[in-house]
Amino acid sequence: MAANYGEIPLNDLQSKGISGRKWTEVKDLSIELKDQYVVIRGNAQAIRAVGKKVGFVLLRGGAFTVQCVLCVAQDVVSPQMVKFATSLNRESVVDIEGVVSVPAQSITGATQQVEIQVRKLYCVHKAYPLPFTVEDAARSEVEIEKALQAGEQLVRVHQDTRLKFRYIDTRTPANQAIFSIICQIENMFTKLLLSEGFLEIKTPRLISGSSEGGSAVFRLDYKGKPACLAQAADSFTHRHLCEFNGLDVEMDIKEHYSEVMDIVDRLFVAIFDYLNEKCSKELEDIKRQYPFENLKYLPKTLRLTFEEGVQMLKETGVEIDPLGDLNTESERKLGQLVLEKYNTEFYILHRYPLPVRPFYTMPCYDDPNYSNSFDVFIRGEEIISGAQRIHVPWYLEERAQECGIDVETISTYIDSFRYGTPPHGGFGVGLERVVMLFCSLNNIRKCSLFPRDPKRIDP
Amino acid sequence: MAANYGEIPLNDLQSKGISGRKWTEVKDLSIELKDQYVVIRGNAQAIRAVGKKVGFVLLRGGAFTVQCVLCVAQDVVSPQMVKFATSLNRESVVDIEGVVSVPAQSITGATQQVEIQVRKLYCVHKAYPLPFTVEDAARSEVEIEKALQAGEQLVRVHQDTRLKFRYIDTRTPANQAIFSIICQIENMFTKLLLSEGFLEIKTPRLISGSSEGGSAVFRLDYKGKPACLAQAADSFTHRHLCEFNGLDVEMDIKEHYSEVMDIVDRLFVAIFDYLNEKCSKELEDIKRQYPFENLKYLPKTLRLTFEEGVQMLKETGVEIDPLGDLNTESERKLGQLVLEKYNTEFYILHRYPLPVRPFYTMPCYDDPNYSNSFDVFIRGEEIISGAQRIHVPWYLEERAQECGIDVETISTYIDSFRYGTPPHGGFGVGLERVVMLFCSLNNIRKCSLFPRDPKRIDP
Repeated sequence: MAANYGEIPLNDLQSKGISGRKWTEVKDLSIELKDQYVVIRGNAQAIRAVGKKVGFVLLRGGAFTVQCVLCVAQDVVSPQMVKFATSLNRESVVDIEGVVSVPAQSITGATQQVEIQVRKLYCVHKAYPLPFTVEDAARSEVEIEKALQAGEQLVRVHQDTRLKFRYIDTRTPANQAIFSIICQIENMFTKLLLSEGFLEIKTPRLISGSSEGGSAVFRLDYKGKPACLAQAADSFTHRHLCEFNGLDVEMDIKEHYSEVMDIVDRLFVAIFDYLNEKCSKELEDIKRQYPFENLKYLPKTLRLTFEEGVQMLKETGVEIDPLGDLNTESERKLGQLVLEKYNTEFYILHRYPLPVRPFYTMPCYDDPNYSNSFDVFIRGEEIISGAQRIHVPWYLEERAQECGIDVETISTYIDSFRYGTPPHGGFGVGLERVVMLFCSLNNIRKCSLFPRDPKRIDP
Repeated sequence: MAANYGEIPLNDLQSKGISGRKWTEVKDLSIELKDQYVVIRGNAQAIRAVGKKVGFVLLRGGAFTVQCVLCVAQDVVSPQMVKFATSLNRESVVDIEGVVSVPAQSITGATQQVEIQVRKLYCVHKAYPLPFTVEDAARSEVEIEKALQAGEQLVRVHQDTRLKFRYIDTRTPANQAIFSIICQIENMFTKLLLSEGFLEIKTPRLISGSSEGGSAVFRLDYKGKPACLAQAADSFTHRHLCEFNGLDVEMDIKEHYSEVMDIVDRLFVAIFDYLNEKCSKELEDIKRQYPFENLKYLPKTLRLTFEEGVQMLKETGVEIDPLGDLNTESERKLGQLVLEKYNTEFYILHRYPLPVRPFYTMPCYDDPNYSNSFDVFIRGEEIISGAQRIHVPWYLEERAQECGIDVETISTYIDSFRYGTPPHGGFGVGLERVVMLFCSLNNIRKCSLFPRDPKRIDP
């Protein structure tokens, strides 16, 4: 029976051989496998001994867990084997062989509705004592508060600790779900645009000079030339990352920048529909830890002009500079007003004042104080910025000068418009923002696997 | 008739209004539209006058071209209109309205098999005189050589000029096809892996310290901490870029690193099949300018050990250090030998000597001189590098020390393996390399939209 458990020597894990055994994934353990002998691998998320003769191991594979039961039985499970299993540190990786059984009562502590009657158990990788358990990391604030009222102090894992040990933190159901959702959003995004005739291209992250006339944060020396990184910023807020994933769309405009807003509309309504219809398991996993209401959006996305937005704010007593930008507070307020009036938390605000947009933004045909630009909001926070771009070199130069940008420093950019450029526009989506706001999460760091902020470049 | 042509004023292109006209894309102009009145926009790739009464404009939209004909006719086309059209610089963007006609002879100079009898023609964007024409950029070496033999000197556009004006160079059929192929490869890659249960994640490009113990090229200051860029290198060869697109796959290994090679095998055979079956138009467009033979590959990818490879080279008189690396020349030679013996230009070479692989590579269970690693080759050049990774912290530390790496500098990396890590492995694919070698292109810069090399960070 001593051969039925123990630590697998490293040498055996160096691709020593192929056993021919069929491995089953935790997610595939269902009642259809009743009485079958299975081989599984996973992390021992929770381990419990009941006396010296019974032990439980909650085994996790991906976002799925299964209860594994060790009962001392002659010729199969020895008391030593139970002791070995229940002495392991949590999160250790174990291989378990056993028989699938279906308990009389339904299981609440695991995702899978079967148990494994353990026959063999080997430790593949011994975990150190954990800085926090996955179960502690998975707890909701509500749960912690409730326990507190009942006089029980549960562990609250703070964000800094989570991010320091991000490779443990990501093992919670909510985090597994968040990264699954991000994956699905990006894939829907690509799929829908390809079906509309777009082409996916890769643009350099290394760019010469400084991006957009001076806003560059991370400068570097490129073989003696000044360079900087695209898609980097340095604000320290709940909604900024130093490195983010931008999904950018550029397209020709036949007549009007509303063609660009049409794409935003179709794309995001389709993505939201998809998430609600196909990702309910993931959304539930997130809600269990971070409760949120489903996003309210319309089949045809609401479009308001900036002037209409300012007017709505004015009517509730919020005075806004009609040619200035909206601050975070007024964006939130406007989001509330729009929700009340139009019953949507997703809308487009367009015709922004020209001075608050980048120099390459096309001014309006009828009023040079405004521009053919738009922002898109979820729950009162910006996720997308877009516009018609200026496609005429002399006009680009003129606008750059008006914005105090040295035209010399952007000459290669301007030159690229000299050889036949159609009117065009586009928009940039902050991928992490979309997920954060769709799920009402309170911090963008929750939506980045290894977030970079002004204080963090590790792990 | 003066209203039927002319330059569109900028103000009219600032999203002034929506005409309600239906726009047709050049690619959709087919004989089914015979006699219909269409509105199209594109670049005037070639312009030709025949006397004062007839003019031709070859209009390009994306990778498609259509012949547009202007014939002086009372109340429709004036001689002034023909003069206006044929005086435009090539690549100017024009709007054309006209009637679709089907000529008696089949058309050879355009991709579309119809002509447009022009009724209206407006210039949307005037191009400057071009540094080179798209037609010159699209010519094959064979064509240039043939013309030379016939006494005609055609323009040969050199690579530096192409890259300086990359935004013109990318308009050729071959380049349009290359970037379409890259898009399709990446999308097949993602699609197939998602169907195998993988999750797509985003990892930071900004990493602390220096990558892989000292190989970092682009260092930068991250709020006072040293940092560097992932996925950057600095060799100046036909097959290296300073910034490349890596597709990385990581997975758990149940028993043997051959599980990782199985994924490579299934994935790339499926991608090659897809390209040959679904992208024949693009492959033909590339071949017309850069002729190549279709890649020879087997339904089940050949796997050779490094030792077998060394032996094959030895048998033809090439002596290789059995514990050293293969240089570019011997990789090519081995590619030839494999092609002759096994009739494939795509194969996997595994069990590389340990000293030539990164410190985190798992040594072989039976011989610490070798490692559980592999490279994958197309036409004798590497496109993929992969391995089982060491998943045990003490062993990682030991191997780092043996490789002369200060363990302190990689402590956050090693710490991430302390809390339950299964045996695992993975591989990295150079996206640009795959396309370059699948299409036998002679330079990787052809496969990067805006290539970065030690001498180039613009445009």
